Amino acid sequence: MTATDIAIVGVGKIARDQHIPSIGRSEAFNLAATVSSHGGVTGVENHATLEGLLDARPDIPAVALCMPPQNRFAAAKAALSAGRHVLLEKPPGATVAEVHALKVLAERRGITLFATWHSRFAAGVEPARQWLADKTLRRVRVTWKEDVRRWHPGQEWIWQPGGLGVFDPGINALSIVTAILPFPVHMTTAELKFPQNREAPIAAALAMTGNGNVAVEAEFDWRHTGAQTWTIEVDTTEGRLVLADGGATLAVADEPPSKAPDREYDAIYGRFAELLTDRQIDVDPTPLVHVADAFMLGKRIIVEPFFD
Amino acid sequence: MTATDIAIVGVGKIARDQHIPSIGRSEAFNLAATVSSHGGVTGVENHATLEGLLDARPDIPAVALCMPPQNRFAAAKAALSAGRHVLLEKPPGATVAEVHALKVLAERRGITLFATWHSRFAAGVEPARQWLADKTLRRVRVTWKEDVRRWHPGQEWIWQPGGLGVFDPGINALSIVTAILPFPVHMTTAELKFPQNREAPIAAALAMTGNGNVAVEAEFDWRHTGAQTWTIEVDTTEGRLVLADGGATLAVADEPPSKAPDREYDAIYGRFAELLTDRQIDVDPTPLVHVADAFMLGKRIIVEPFFD
Repeated sequence: MTATDIAIVGVGKIARDQHIPSIGRSEAFNLAATVSSHGGVTGVENHATLEGLLDARPDIPAVALCMPPQNRFAAAKAALSAGRHVLLEKPPGATVAEVHALKVLAERRGITLFATWHSRFAAGVEPARQWLADKTLRRVRVTWKEDVRRWHPGQEWIWQPGGLGVFDPGINALSIVTAILPFPVHMTTAELKFPQNREAPIAAALAMTGNGNVAVEAEFDWRHTGAQTWTIEVDTTEGRLVLADGGATLAVADEPPSKAPDREYDAIYGRFAELLTDRQIDVDPTPLVHVADAFMLGKRIIVEPFFD
Repeated sequence: MTATDIAIVGVGKIARDQHIPSIGRSEAFNLAATVSSHGGVTGVENHATLEGLLDARPDIPAVALCMPPQNRFAAAKAALSAGRHVLLEKPPGATVAEVHALKVLAERRGITLFATWHSRFAAGVEPARQWLADKTLRRVRVTWKEDVRRWHPGQEWIWQPGGLGVFDPGINALSIVTAILPFPVHMTTAELKFPQNREAPIAAALAMTGNGNVAVEAEFDWRHTGAQTWTIEVDTTEGRLVLADGGATLAVADEPPSKAPDREYDAIYGRFAELLTDRQIDVDPTPLVHVADAFMLGKRIIVEPFFD
């Protein structure tokens, strides 16, 4: 197999922590260039702008967009319009409408667009989906509590409009929930807690429902300094399923939990390679729709200021 | 033609002002019953609850849901599950996800679901769409300024989470814009002004874009006590189109404006009759998607308290 040349656009924390190492391990991809206005990666050709890359390197057929969501649409549109296959970090855009527009553009051009949700590739997610497929669900509880200072140090964009605040990690939980539940859900009430000095919420309590009256409750909190918790519990008539550690650890009924090593981004690039084979599109806006719904429906509560 | 029996669910201002008179004028429908917990319409059978109606009158094949959006999903689901065709007042739900769920349910049951956007039936809208179809657009400006005390006296639900505030009229503008422009748009920035004592915005300034870089700007304001303004101006390379009076008055280039009488709801019931003929579904969530996007992306600004 010949490796596909790919460029990373936006060399921030997620690109360095995940994308670049996974591409390095992948036989399907070769990191041919980066785009960064403030320095790229040692030994890899860097361009200051995406336009510069698209002009200079028509031979690079694919790009991975890893910049903050507020700027993702313009970049994705430019890359798709230049005929490049596009992988989008999550969330796939700042609005639901722009994600739809990108999908329409990719369909029209017959090129691959992959809106990734990395948590869906956590080791326990697919087995959880399979186990739940034939169960009768009673209740779902999502607890996503982490310390924003530890995971998002100095990332100002997360606090700006469109940065989503605590929904930036919370959307990972929603991406798992919408993948493993055997029915669709919708928001019924939401409480969003905004620090007095910030544009985005630091905590949220969501109530969703699906399949008649199965309650799906979610608590997201970025002010949590104790044990970091990313857990989804699903009560069924045949026992409880617990997906912990962001999807990496799965415990079903009374069986002992199984934990697999983190391979989310390796799996993402494996999937992207598959999609490229026959120019498929994989864009599911559902987690972002739920976030938009929570903002539209949500009661806003002002809480104490947050300082980094 | 035999008139189809229909029941109105939620006998509030919009039902009395529009639905009941239009059904009265329609040859296609007969108002067979109402559902209202606080009294219906003289001479028409009333049920206190929707469940009561569905149980007592299996012979009524269609319902029009006119209650506030926060309660619309449960009612629509109950009616569709009981095999009744459903007409939804705007907005079609409190969330984008629930509108999608209703559409899936109607498709599965093979019954008609019509998510109405009454402003799309204003007299100038279809001619405006036709005129713009082959034009090159430069700029779009939406001005929707009205006095909330005059149009929504004592309607507490509009101020509650999910009531949408100024987006309740503003979504009418968005329903027209998304019908007449020859390309899709998406939100780029939004400012939402919340009265200190309310859960929903009283004013909003939106910037959207589409088709490359055509700017679509919208200003919604509920604090406007002067001349009430519901205007959409579209600048093209072949002159300006002005759609005023909420879509009723159309002026194109240098021609004199033409104004037609208000027939929005008569047209809605005409369309519903058409859809029923072969059990079609007409659900376009786009205007609600833009509102959800505005809430998700929007900068929240607290303004002076509002008292009815």
